[in-house]
Amino acid sequence: MIYRSLSPLSCRKTKQHTLFRFQCIQETRKMPLNKLIQDGDNQDLTNERFKSTFDTDALAAVFHSGEDSLKRIREVRDEITKRGHLFDSLPAAHRTRAEKMEDVSRKLKNLMENVNEFADFTNNLDMLTIIRDVMGVEGFPLALHNLMFVPTIQNQADDEQTEWWLMDAIQGKIIGTYAQTELGHGTNLSAIETTATYDKSTEEFIIHTPTTTATKWWPGGLGTSCTHVILVANLIIDNKNYGLHPFFVPIRDRNSYSQMSGVRVGDIGTKMGVNCVDNGFLAFDNYRIPRRNMLMKHSKVSKEGVYTAPSHPKVGYTTMLYMRSEMIMHQSYYLAMAMVIAIRYSAVRRQGEIKPGTQEVQILDYQTQQYRLFPGLARCFAFVTAANTVRQMTESCIQELSHGKSDVLADLHALSCGLKAVVTHQSSTSIDQARQGCGGHGYSDASYLPTLYTCSVGACTYEGENMVMLLQLSKYLMKAAAKAEEGAVMAPLVAYLASSEPVVIGDKFEKLLSHFEHIARHRVMQAYRQMIEEEKQGIERDYAFANHSVDWTKAARAHTKLFIARGFVKKVQEVSHQEVHAVLTTLAELYLSYELIEMSSDLTANGYLSESQVQEIRHQIYDCMRKIRPNAVSIVDSFDFCDRELRSVLGRRDGHVYENLYKWAQMSPLNRKNLPHVEKYLKPMTSKL
Amino acid sequence: MIYRSLSPLSCRKTKQHTLFRFQCIQETRKMPLNKLIQDGDNQDLTNERFKSTFDTDALAAVFHSGEDSLKRIREVRDEITKRGHLFDSLPAAHRTRAEKMEDVSRKLKNLMENVNEFADFTNNLDMLTIIRDVMGVEGFPLALHNLMFVPTIQNQADDEQTEWWLMDAIQGKIIGTYAQTELGHGTNLSAIETTATYDKSTEEFIIHTPTTTATKWWPGGLGTSCTHVILVANLIIDNKNYGLHPFFVPIRDRNSYSQMSGVRVGDIGTKMGVNCVDNGFLAFDNYRIPRRNMLMKHSKVSKEGVYTAPSHPKVGYTTMLYMRSEMIMHQSYYLAMAMVIAIRYSAVRRQGEIKPGTQEVQILDYQTQQYRLFPGLARCFAFVTAANTVRQMTESCIQELSHGKSDVLADLHALSCGLKAVVTHQSSTSIDQARQGCGGHGYSDASYLPTLYTCSVGACTYEGENMVMLLQLSKYLMKAAAKAEEGAVMAPLVAYLASSEPVVIGDKFEKLLSHFEHIARHRVMQAYRQMIEEEKQGIERDYAFANHSVDWTKAARAHTKLFIARGFVKKVQEVSHQEVHAVLTTLAELYLSYELIEMSSDLTANGYLSESQVQEIRHQIYDCMRKIRPNAVSIVDSFDFCDRELRSVLGRRDGHVYENLYKWAQMSPLNRKNLPHVEKYLKPMTSKL
Repeated sequence: MIYRSLSPLSCRKTKQHTLFRFQCIQETRKMPLNKLIQDGDNQDLTNERFKSTFDTDALAAVFHSGEDSLKRIREVRDEITKRGHLFDSLPAAHRTRAEKMEDVSRKLKNLMENVNEFADFTNNLDMLTIIRDVMGVEGFPLALHNLMFVPTIQNQADDEQTEWWLMDAIQGKIIGTYAQTELGHGTNLSAIETTATYDKSTEEFIIHTPTTTATKWWPGGLGTSCTHVILVANLIIDNKNYGLHPFFVPIRDRNSYSQMSGVRVGDIGTKMGVNCVDNGFLAFDNYRIPRRNMLMKHSKVSKEGVYTAPSHPKVGYTTMLYMRSEMIMHQSYYLAMAMVIAIRYSAVRRQGEIKPGTQEVQILDYQTQQYRLFPGLARCFAFVTAANTVRQMTESCIQELSHGKSDVLADLHALSCGLKAVVTHQSSTSIDQARQGCGGHGYSDASYLPTLYTCSVGACTYEGENMVMLLQLSKYLMKAAAKAEEGAVMAPLVAYLASSEPVVIGDKFEKLLSHFEHIARHRVMQAYRQMIEEEKQGIERDYAFANHSVDWTKAARAHTKLFIARGFVKKVQEVSHQEVHAVLTTLAELYLSYELIEMSSDLTANGYLSESQVQEIRHQIYDCMRKIRPNAVSIVDSFDFCDRELRSVLGRRDGHVYENLYKWAQMSPLNRKNLPHVEKYLKPMTSKL
Repeated sequence: MIYRSLSPLSCRKTKQHTLFRFQCIQETRKMPLNKLIQDGDNQDLTNERFKSTFDTDALAAVFHSGEDSLKRIREVRDEITKRGHLFDSLPAAHRTRAEKMEDVSRKLKNLMENVNEFADFTNNLDMLTIIRDVMGVEGFPLALHNLMFVPTIQNQADDEQTEWWLMDAIQGKIIGTYAQTELGHGTNLSAIETTATYDKSTEEFIIHTPTTTATKWWPGGLGTSCTHVILVANLIIDNKNYGLHPFFVPIRDRNSYSQMSGVRVGDIGTKMGVNCVDNGFLAFDNYRIPRRNMLMKHSKVSKEGVYTAPSHPKVGYTTMLYMRSEMIMHQSYYLAMAMVIAIRYSAVRRQGEIKPGTQEVQILDYQTQQYRLFPGLARCFAFVTAANTVRQMTESCIQELSHGKSDVLADLHALSCGLKAVVTHQSSTSIDQARQGCGGHGYSDASYLPTLYTCSVGACTYEGENMVMLLQLSKYLMKAAAKAEEGAVMAPLVAYLASSEPVVIGDKFEKLLSHFEHIARHRVMQAYRQMIEEEKQGIERDYAFANHSVDWTKAARAHTKLFIARGFVKKVQEVSHQEVHAVLTTLAELYLSYELIEMSSDLTANGYLSESQVQEIRHQIYDCMRKIRPNAVSIVDSFDFCDRELRSVLGRRDGHVYENLYKWAQMSPLNRKNLPHVEKYLKPMTSKL
């Protein structure tokens, strides 16, 4: 254990030491490996950057899915830099909600007018880069327009309808959202109450909201901004309910913005976060739309009221699938942003002494701080890899569906449910740890961490509440477990359920992955067998499942973590750049060991591993943290976010935190003269008569 | 396992059934046991209330520390009900920060003018009741005034100074806060830079802020509201630094509210929560105050500049101790409020079907929902019990200190550090689970859950960041572990460290508590021995401690959980009311089993328990949840919060959630006409020319 005396804690560098090292580096290599070093920066941060063992551009290319996309991201960013009318005019925290909406809409309008000069808004990479940079994470009135309205037209409108609506939508001449959730009904779609009843006589649908609970509730942009919605409603023809279908419904006049007669629409008020999105309510009073406003790529209703069913009953899931796959990517980026902020600040912030009477240390040197931050850092890479995989799978699934094939839909749906739940939960948890790791200043909106957290944790709820997501995956796993017991052929993602415990002779990664497999298999099969046991005692399957639903959600999480872990290891093995490969290997080892220790009671259960084997995995966490420590700042530098995107005083590239916190505070509107609360109420209390 | 078929999931009551049962109850007893039943309420909620097996008033008396204090709370609340000028004039979520500050200050001024008619603001119970009801949890400009400024005068000013300042402070004629934390320095007090240099020639202290990082930062009320602060600064006499001392410093003119010459003061902007508190910054430019503005109950400086040390060097800790003990109580109440909201809503909300084609079920019937909520429900009682204990200990410790005795200070300080960290972390985690358990509507500010969360999680950071708190307790435990190894006499709270594993033959509680003891002892002694091992290899103690600090924080958490668990069990055993005792017994069993399963890898380590023993504890969680389910609404009803205090549409006593969400939404300021973002930017985009 003597190597510990050489750890950053017990043998810290002096400035002289670092300067000396700098000179050595200067002599041996012309360029430092970290590309963000600039004169005049905070010295602690510069010292950290000189320690980099790898080229930050090379790691950035891995994080951003290749050199080409990194290059494109930088090009787009450079173009934005030239356009001051796309910048925030004041930190959003110093504004009221209405002022924030105004500023974000200003940038949006400027963007719609100029975006074609430098980017392609229909290109996913361009769009995400622009949104991250120009809009920030609190959203904007057209967020759902881009994420759900336009894609739904693309995927579910027929050719003629696409011709009618798509260009207007892309150009923002109509602004739309996706209205599915109702006040009293969320993830249980079968309970949705809104109806679209076909009236043969006029060839129209009559849209109606029969109860208060049927009021559409939550769609983003609906509150004040949308002119149209894709409405999800029960299709009724001749008193027969054909289930939910999408309709293209105008709700506000494009010129006056007044609501259409027969429509009640408005804003539902503030939320925990994402308050630049105007989530709204919407109700209809026998409101009529033409027959051809039903999206008819998959299902159709003829003039005569004859219904044609889609090739696959779940073909309408594509919007949801697409949305969830994008969410996983967004969450990875939110987490990465939080990590940049927290790790840079932890290098700048000095607090406390390891040994009383010595100099205050950088808080990044505390093992407890590393334990808070580095697992989240590793998760960034794990999640972004998973996001890329599921995005590719989703794209090819949507492609196949458009040709009438739906073979992989069930597998992909189950997988995306699990990923949505695990990634949103773990990323928001890690962001919160990052925030708390920044102490008081992390609680200030100057850090941007509260905004990142409240936006990120919202994703645990929207587009399918996480517990419901895990239970949907569980039902899939239940079927897979039955097949495993029967010895039937299994889909690749669940084939491991039928394997016996292997004797692993592979490398470290293989060994750790086999533990993930063991845990997932053990949890799934145990939940299944407990359930079957109850069934044998006369309990119906649905109730037996419900009686073990907590165990099932734990099984679903383990299954999902196995998928993420496998993907991360595969990704690392594909990286050929030697130094980058080394860094990613350590991050992957940390990721795997940390997640396993989080589930360690499963490792010791039934003597699968001995105490000392588990202890070995635990020590590997600390070993990895020590290895990551000197590269930590350079790793987050490789996420390649600029200060404008980070919107964080704590996360500034130059590390000049304190003077800028002071400047930021001066902008608080409470520093204006003659505040009403002081003039009207406090002054009369304190003033001497 | 056949009893499961009788669980709420598989055998749900019809309305007829419940009405029949109601009639039976009416016949056998005149009053239902749940005292909140009213005609016209949501029927699901009424049905729940009729299931109560205990008198809600009797449990309320236990929760609120006795019948007398419950009676007093209700008296004060009834008085507030008569005074409309103490009510919110609009839900805070629909206001800007400045408007919120205005409304809260209006209520504050009305309160200061009238409080003596119906309550005693110097009485803790009265004050907390009033603040909870009138102010809500987002704070108010005098929050720190009440919690820190006034108590510090009471505990640290000498008699003459108390005479000068106390009454003015109590009457709000001066408004103050406690200014300790600096921009660059938080929990490491030895790094505080602000100086108070004694000038014999004028008998004044010269207060000075030598650097940007020395700017006082964070004190609540400082931003706009305070006329005075208790300033914590280094006392310098004749170039000698005597360390930190408290000074009574005027910063704003009481008549004009303009800042004093030599003072720079202002607001630091918005935070994640608590935005009705105006946290501020404060810097001094050689600002002079009279000698007698140093608080001199403990330390003194004579006219001639002669320093007299306090009887105990840590006597200044009392404000901090008092604050932390109050925080633990506040957190318990925040958690209880979140539980009322989430459990009532979970009884009202119906979503999904256990068996497809049957009626949608109350979400409270899902095992996963119970697992989210009920452990938090049990924690309410565990934490409020701990809060009462530590409050009593703190009061008697402060009492002893005023007589120069400081025997228990170290023990109490360590304990309050651990409690502060564990209670704030677990209560905010449980509040977040409650919020997420309410789905989308939990994310809306209409639920008040985001406000409860953001305020509650702030407590993980302020008044001693949790990780630092755990490390402070760890240092105490390290000394205790050394004593245990030596066989020395131990303080009562740590005596278990020296025990050998007992063979437990007691009841269920004894057995479960012995597992807590085992885990805490194992973690503490293992962390200690690992550290000693490293010391033997030549690593200095401080670095060896740092190298194992993650393990130490885990040990500190286990130690604290043992204290909470013991206290909860003791409390339950003291309750004589039979039905209430039965309910609390189940809650305590759930609490103990849940916390143990959260640490279950420690239970199987080294074969302490077998897998089947751990599985038994796990099943106990589910058994307890089933027992709690029919009483859940009545348990939260017993927290005895009125709708005005809860400020939550989801938590309404009458359960009329949906129509009131609709009403709440109508109040959103974004429902006004001619919104700037629409008029200026969206309309020009969409309008057809």
